[in-house]
Amino acid sequence: MTHRSGRHFLQLPGPTPVPGRVFRAMNRDVIDHRGPEFGRMSLGLFEGLKRVFGDPAHVFIFPSSASGCWEAALVNALSPGDRVLLWNNGFFASKWGDFARELGFDVEVLTGDWRHPADPGRIAARLAQDREREIQAVLVVHNETSTGVTSDIAAIRAAIDGTGHPTLFMVDTVSSLAATPFRQSEWGVDVSVCGSQKGLMLPPGLGFCAVSDRALDRHRDGAPTPRAYFDWTEMLRENERGYFPYTPPTTLLYGLEASLAMLREEGADATFARHTRLAEATRRAVAGWGLRNYCQDPDAVSSAGTTVMVGDGEDAEPFRAAVLERFDMSLGTGLGPLRGKVFRIGHLGDVNELMLMGALAGVEMGLKISGIAHTTGGLAAAAEFLAAADSPADA
Amino acid sequence: MTHRSGRHFLQLPGPTPVPGRVFRAMNRDVIDHRGPEFGRMSLGLFEGLKRVFGDPAHVFIFPSSASGCWEAALVNALSPGDRVLLWNNGFFASKWGDFARELGFDVEVLTGDWRHPADPGRIAARLAQDREREIQAVLVVHNETSTGVTSDIAAIRAAIDGTGHPTLFMVDTVSSLAATPFRQSEWGVDVSVCGSQKGLMLPPGLGFCAVSDRALDRHRDGAPTPRAYFDWTEMLRENERGYFPYTPPTTLLYGLEASLAMLREEGADATFARHTRLAEATRRAVAGWGLRNYCQDPDAVSSAGTTVMVGDGEDAEPFRAAVLERFDMSLGTGLGPLRGKVFRIGHLGDVNELMLMGALAGVEMGLKISGIAHTTGGLAAAAEFLAAADSPADA
Repeated sequence: MTHRSGRHFLQLPGPTPVPGRVFRAMNRDVIDHRGPEFGRMSLGLFEGLKRVFGDPAHVFIFPSSASGCWEAALVNALSPGDRVLLWNNGFFASKWGDFARELGFDVEVLTGDWRHPADPGRIAARLAQDREREIQAVLVVHNETSTGVTSDIAAIRAAIDGTGHPTLFMVDTVSSLAATPFRQSEWGVDVSVCGSQKGLMLPPGLGFCAVSDRALDRHRDGAPTPRAYFDWTEMLRENERGYFPYTPPTTLLYGLEASLAMLREEGADATFARHTRLAEATRRAVAGWGLRNYCQDPDAVSSAGTTVMVGDGEDAEPFRAAVLERFDMSLGTGLGPLRGKVFRIGHLGDVNELMLMGALAGVEMGLKISGIAHTTGGLAAAAEFLAAADSPADA
Repeated sequence: MTHRSGRHFLQLPGPTPVPGRVFRAMNRDVIDHRGPEFGRMSLGLFEGLKRVFGDPAHVFIFPSSASGCWEAALVNALSPGDRVLLWNNGFFASKWGDFARELGFDVEVLTGDWRHPADPGRIAARLAQDREREIQAVLVVHNETSTGVTSDIAAIRAAIDGTGHPTLFMVDTVSSLAATPFRQSEWGVDVSVCGSQKGLMLPPGLGFCAVSDRALDRHRDGAPTPRAYFDWTEMLRENERGYFPYTPPTTLLYGLEASLAMLREEGADATFARHTRLAEATRRAVAGWGLRNYCQDPDAVSSAGTTVMVGDGEDAEPFRAAVLERFDMSLGTGLGPLRGKVFRIGHLGDVNELMLMGALAGVEMGLKISGIAHTTGGLAAAAEFLAAADSPADA
């Protein structure tokens, strides 16, 4: 392998760049996971996570990827064969549906054009038809990482409430948490699912399940779905004193302690404003290149990542390969049916103006090198926007 | 928190001390898990792991604790409700049985005195009775971490073969792998389960499932048990080119690359000889203190950890607390029914003679401080043995 100078630009919508402070925190000897120091640390982590998720009753931490917590949500809060209503708005929503089917649930899919967010009205209409109350959970991906389209969780909650349907509401916050506002308690979300490698700025390896009291009640009182590793009951019992039923990933928990401190120090409003600003700069660059944002709804554009379409008959993959080879930058690939048709620019996590400008320069030069039809001017448009934007301190 | 000088003695039978080389390897920026560099790295890891496990058909790496791979073994190679025969020889074997029951399998338990290893003759006798061939898998823990008793996997295999019973053979190698010989292919083990934080010298966070072709066939052809996160099919498909169906814990994989290199450089025979030597020194210390090894079978004493009994009416917990408080050393607690009756000295992973002598000194001084009845002389006995032992270079 050849040495490449300077830092790699990891410009995916996750995993995101891990800050040096988080790496240094993780770079610490493992301690006894049944000892007093460990218990104190974990209790602090649970409190910090509750703040980030918006005051759920509890946040479970699993040694898993985020997709493990898709499974945890389903097998803990539902009974075998339960019907769930999934809004399919992209690759990850599809995958969550696949998980649910593989686990034996009855998955009913609503879908629209992937270029638009979930439609609260259609969800409400379906729930209103469900007079037998067969639907036990509504599943929505907050920010669909594959498309760069953000759905309006509060509006979906209001639509559910309007029908009086008692369904649980489960939300994938994998690429939204700590990038875009999410308020679990206020929005009446029963289970939210997340991972460590996006807005939380950690390496991959931790999954999170934030739960409401209602979800915990359903867990306790429902006919149980078979589960062992992802079971909440024993996890909750051990978590009460800061412990886990099996060995947790200690060094990632050290990192989480650091990333929660960083988010607290920046302040949630400033974190969200930064993501909004960087996302807007990216969209101006895309417009400046004369390319199309995959997301067609200006109210649903993602603060976490932008999915950019290449022209009909063009292939985004050689462009991505050229950018990696020439400029040492990883851009997100087109997933599932979007393979080759789009590339994705991540702008969430520990990213600032100049990191983004470097990334956008890499895109602009890569477009030129690989012969993707575009106009120059994207980079300049982003710079103009960022120079004029409120400084972070005023945001 | 007060600063404590010098290094913490993490003398558990896992997690084990993480070498600086592994930490430095992990201290590297996350790369694109769908990119070419990642694929090349993973393919090398699979090859390295196959060497360590003794040539299974494939080794799955899951973002999970080792217990996640208990579940992976069961849900992938068995059909719903299948009967399994579990030898219960300790806390972790019991837990594996709990997992199997929670997942809906029919668990038949054989047990003996926890102070002895699994009895191949009784396993064979039960299989011979099973004329209907209802038993689909035999589950045995190779080294039971809670008791410090190692079972003879090759002898159990021979006993199974003697009956002609077609059962699968599943083995928990969590605290045996890379501490004591394990040869998956030669011993006809179909699925073995391990984690990262023991002999592999990593922080916790990776689970491993090493599988035979027979287990893969059973997986492919059997009536499937519901599974999603731990499913082998999609994992295998992605693994073929070095990828994963969901985001893997990249930094732990960097660490694995380093630890596999270290094991290769030391050489398996030297690794096992070192563990045998340190374990024998520990047992001489225990005898020198006039304390009893929980393991009563001299042929089954563990190379990974020694479980030491305190006297009737004595409580090992204040002793453990005193050792932590006074000497900054974590010893293993007594698990389940052994709580308070034993303490556990870990001597596996990246441990050498002088680290062990420091640990044994901490035990001897702790016994004195906390008033556990003993005779001095354990430390001296260990030193005498280690000084006389072959040097590592001759081993």
